[in-house]
Amino acid sequence: MNIPSSFVEPVAECLAIVGVGLIGGSLAAAVRQRGLARQIIGVGRDPERLEPARARGLIDACTADLTAAAREADLIVFCTPPDRIAAGVRAAAGACRRGTLITDAGSTKQLICAAAATGLPAGVDFVGSHPLAGSEKQGFDHADANLFEGRLCVVTPVETTPRPALDRTIAFWQRVGMRVIEMSPGDHDAAVAETSHLPHLVASALAATLSESRRDLAASGFRDTTRIAAGDPQLWTTILLQNAEAVLQSLERFSTGVANFREALQARDVDALHRLLEAGKQQRDRL
Amino acid sequence: MNIPSSFVEPVAECLAIVGVGLIGGSLAAAVRQRGLARQIIGVGRDPERLEPARARGLIDACTADLTAAAREADLIVFCTPPDRIAAGVRAAAGACRRGTLITDAGSTKQLICAAAATGLPAGVDFVGSHPLAGSEKQGFDHADANLFEGRLCVVTPVETTPRPALDRTIAFWQRVGMRVIEMSPGDHDAAVAETSHLPHLVASALAATLSESRRDLAASGFRDTTRIAAGDPQLWTTILLQNAEAVLQSLERFSTGVANFREALQARDVDALHRLLEAGKQQRDRL
Repeated sequence: MNIPSSFVEPVAECLAIVGVGLIGGSLAAAVRQRGLARQIIGVGRDPERLEPARARGLIDACTADLTAAAREADLIVFCTPPDRIAAGVRAAAGACRRGTLITDAGSTKQLICAAAATGLPAGVDFVGSHPLAGSEKQGFDHADANLFEGRLCVVTPVETTPRPALDRTIAFWQRVGMRVIEMSPGDHDAAVAETSHLPHLVASALAATLSESRRDLAASGFRDTTRIAAGDPQLWTTILLQNAEAVLQSLERFSTGVANFREALQARDVDALHRLLEAGKQQRDRL
Repeated sequence: MNIPSSFVEPVAECLAIVGVGLIGGSLAAAVRQRGLARQIIGVGRDPERLEPARARGLIDACTADLTAAAREADLIVFCTPPDRIAAGVRAAAGACRRGTLITDAGSTKQLICAAAATGLPAGVDFVGSHPLAGSEKQGFDHADANLFEGRLCVVTPVETTPRPALDRTIAFWQRVGMRVIEMSPGDHDAAVAETSHLPHLVASALAATLSESRRDLAASGFRDTTRIAAGDPQLWTTILLQNAEAVLQSLERFSTGVANFREALQARDVDALHRLLEAGKQQRDRL
């Protein structure tokens, strides 16, 4: 059942989305479709590039002036690459009215929350978020109002996070269709190192191993295994560096697993090889 | 346009499929749907397990007696695990009539062709084949008459392979919908080590790296990257061992790539990391 938006209580009078790419654009589309904000401002470094998003009705206005947008907004979501979120939050917070909530969609949380979740002006709160939705596609051209539907969002409160700000953040992501769980920023980063950042690194290294002359033989198995390697190198450089320690730890465990395979193969050890493949299958089947 | 089967020239009077699993079952379905054989015999170690395939009309008869089936057939396709193909071919060949063609669907080719493509009785030929179709699913319950449609099949003649036998093998795979290329058994094995066997090993090691407590955060990226790890451990043990040298060589190249990532991350080297991710993306985008 679609509830007409006039009957839905908005989560924001004015929502500012900073960084209108795939995630920011999809968030605008989801909020619009569900009638969750009366106004949506898109903030980008080059407002002309956002003009088509405005013309399409994803956003109501676009600007390069973060502080101007921050003065209007009662909810701000940063969807920029993770290394630009903390500075953006602090710049925006200085211009915000009391009661404004700031959150984000960054793939890493420790550095961001350490820099942004404390020391903001009174009455302005930042709560870290990571909606686990996305794709190897880029840009608001691929914006999808249902990108978040049924997916998981991790919110990462710190000790000083006020409960009302946390509840409001949780409610926001739930209203765009997500299941929400709470984790500490550190636990979040260790987890996504394993589930997302290491797989990206591995997919990229695997894609690069393919010789040109053998490309014709790459069938669906190879394609699936390397799909995420098509992601934006700039963004992923940032993500991997922001979470370098946790990624290196996951990489260590993965490398041990690969070394076990190598030894079993070198020794032509049927049992060891079967055990390793069985362990991988059991883990995969449980997903 | 579907051509009624009575108007299609069959490629075989009697086709024997040895090993009626996903590939063998799908082959039976494809041949049946296209009217390419007047009779299809399924050969399995336990004919009772094939009875549902007969009841469903995939095959006309089922037997555990390979030599009895070989006496009837003018075309035999081995769809058993690769380590059982060569011995099966030699056993069947002794019972075959002159003019019978034997081929296979094994994922490795060097060991099989070395043992099976020479020294057969006069008038009985073996030509190695590898239809690049499959899935992590198993068994003829998942048989799909269109599994081969538009996919690539590699045929691997050796010096002694008679041209007519090779042509007939090529025509057979084309008639079930495949594009066919020729490679030497050695080139084939080196290629699939890179495009299929290494990715399987890597996906398996990656799946095994995931901690149980972090399973909830595994989103579509992790799922895609590890999908093939759900394959049958028994079959993949055989495949990896049959192609151990080539897989170890590919693994060496992959490990160098992973080590480059590790060094770049340890040094927090933005440029090196970006270069590595860019290289992976470029290779992936070319697929």
